[in-house]
Amino acid sequence: MAKIKGVLIDLSGVLYVGDQPLAGARDALARLQASGLPLAYLTNTTRQTRDRIHRKLSNMGFTVPESAIYTAPQAVRAYLEEHDLRPFLLIHPDLEPEFADLVRPSPNAVVLGDAGDAFTYQALNQAFRLVVSGAPLIAMGNNRYFQEPDGLSLDIGPFLAALEHATGTEALVLGKPALQFFRAAVDAIQCQRGEVMMIGDDALADVEGALRAGLQACLVRTGKYRPGDEALIQVPGAILADDFPGAVDRLLAL
Amino acid sequence: MAKIKGVLIDLSGVLYVGDQPLAGARDALARLQASGLPLAYLTNTTRQTRDRIHRKLSNMGFTVPESAIYTAPQAVRAYLEEHDLRPFLLIHPDLEPEFADLVRPSPNAVVLGDAGDAFTYQALNQAFRLVVSGAPLIAMGNNRYFQEPDGLSLDIGPFLAALEHATGTEALVLGKPALQFFRAAVDAIQCQRGEVMMIGDDALADVEGALRAGLQACLVRTGKYRPGDEALIQVPGAILADDFPGAVDRLLAL
Repeated sequence: MAKIKGVLIDLSGVLYVGDQPLAGARDALARLQASGLPLAYLTNTTRQTRDRIHRKLSNMGFTVPESAIYTAPQAVRAYLEEHDLRPFLLIHPDLEPEFADLVRPSPNAVVLGDAGDAFTYQALNQAFRLVVSGAPLIAMGNNRYFQEPDGLSLDIGPFLAALEHATGTEALVLGKPALQFFRAAVDAIQCQRGEVMMIGDDALADVEGALRAGLQACLVRTGKYRPGDEALIQVPGAILADDFPGAVDRLLAL
Repeated sequence: MAKIKGVLIDLSGVLYVGDQPLAGARDALARLQASGLPLAYLTNTTRQTRDRIHRKLSNMGFTVPESAIYTAPQAVRAYLEEHDLRPFLLIHPDLEPEFADLVRPSPNAVVLGDAGDAFTYQALNQAFRLVVSGAPLIAMGNNRYFQEPDGLSLDIGPFLAALEHATGTEALVLGKPALQFFRAAVDAIQCQRGEVMMIGDDALADVEGALRAGLQACLVRTGKYRPGDEALIQVPGAILADDFPGAVDRLLAL
């Protein structure tokens, strides 16, 4: 493992599940923060605004500056503004405030988040018809599923696969595992890619994605992790840790 | 084109769209029936029972014996019974009567139809969790979309793709383009595969599927057909016709 000079941390499944901090996660984060390494928090969570994620972390006892949280919805918002696109939003109602000012008549882009119950047939069909007629399909990630207290639940990826399959087009994915998303965070903490470690519970979106972007990466066996997930990673170099405290121990031992 | 001794006919998009017969379709079917060739009707429509499809055809002026209609739901029902499976049904409410007696507690199979508005997040998530825990995923087809009076609409295929992507498993598809589905119909009309022509508007489910099953096949440019669809067909030998009357003219000219 090369010397680590900065750390990117996935949130859900690494620091907490639902609204419960994972065992030892608060202490481990405090130790990591005390080390002085620059940190950033990367989440594809698309059911909450960044503000809400920050408050949720605070309520669970994690001390994290809001400006260090990088969300997939922010990346999508920036893209829409840059390209002057009028989005049709297939996103969670709790995220709608973050996009409300961009919604105008005659949408010419489809934005896909983890819409949850808002993934209705009618809404998916409307998105399908827009993409068939030429609107770009922009996704806040392509995670397959996430861990909920009562089991795994479908994330954005399967619905993205549905629309890609139906339309024969490929989506623009702007959250993890998009290289650009990792690299923007690396730039923000003023490090070089090879000396930054990404810690996450998603073998593909977090770990394989970070490795492809030229970072180091550690898969933790918490959250959505299932035995054998490490075998899904098609790029060499992944590190395994039982949990976030274990990952921090290994990092700080260097 | 080899001598044709039997014909398989797709219904929606070939004979009618919505509840409207296509131009010339009734006369063309009458001519084909008068020729004495044995006919069967193959549909992946999973929003109606066979009985309802038969009545719909009658109401539009098509004279078709109900026993000559082969539906994907029937094929799925037969499979469930043969393997003593308890289905979780993700199907259209109008089709539920055809499966009501098979539903028992603790489902151990997921059955996917074109559920339409019944494709809710909750239902898809329940199907996802069952498949993750080992239940087979059985689909009544994998058509991407179908033609509605106001535009194209999502069919079963995209939702199948979503569940396959989420679970990393492959579904058992029992409607078109399953080879077995075509071959059962060929057997029913007592023909040899190579001397039977399938006529359909779906380049993949109807035409490529039939060609793969060893039949001849004709793509009609009605219903869901879009210019260029013929290029999707990965197996040589497809015949093109403007519409069902055109396909019948070519058949009867032989």
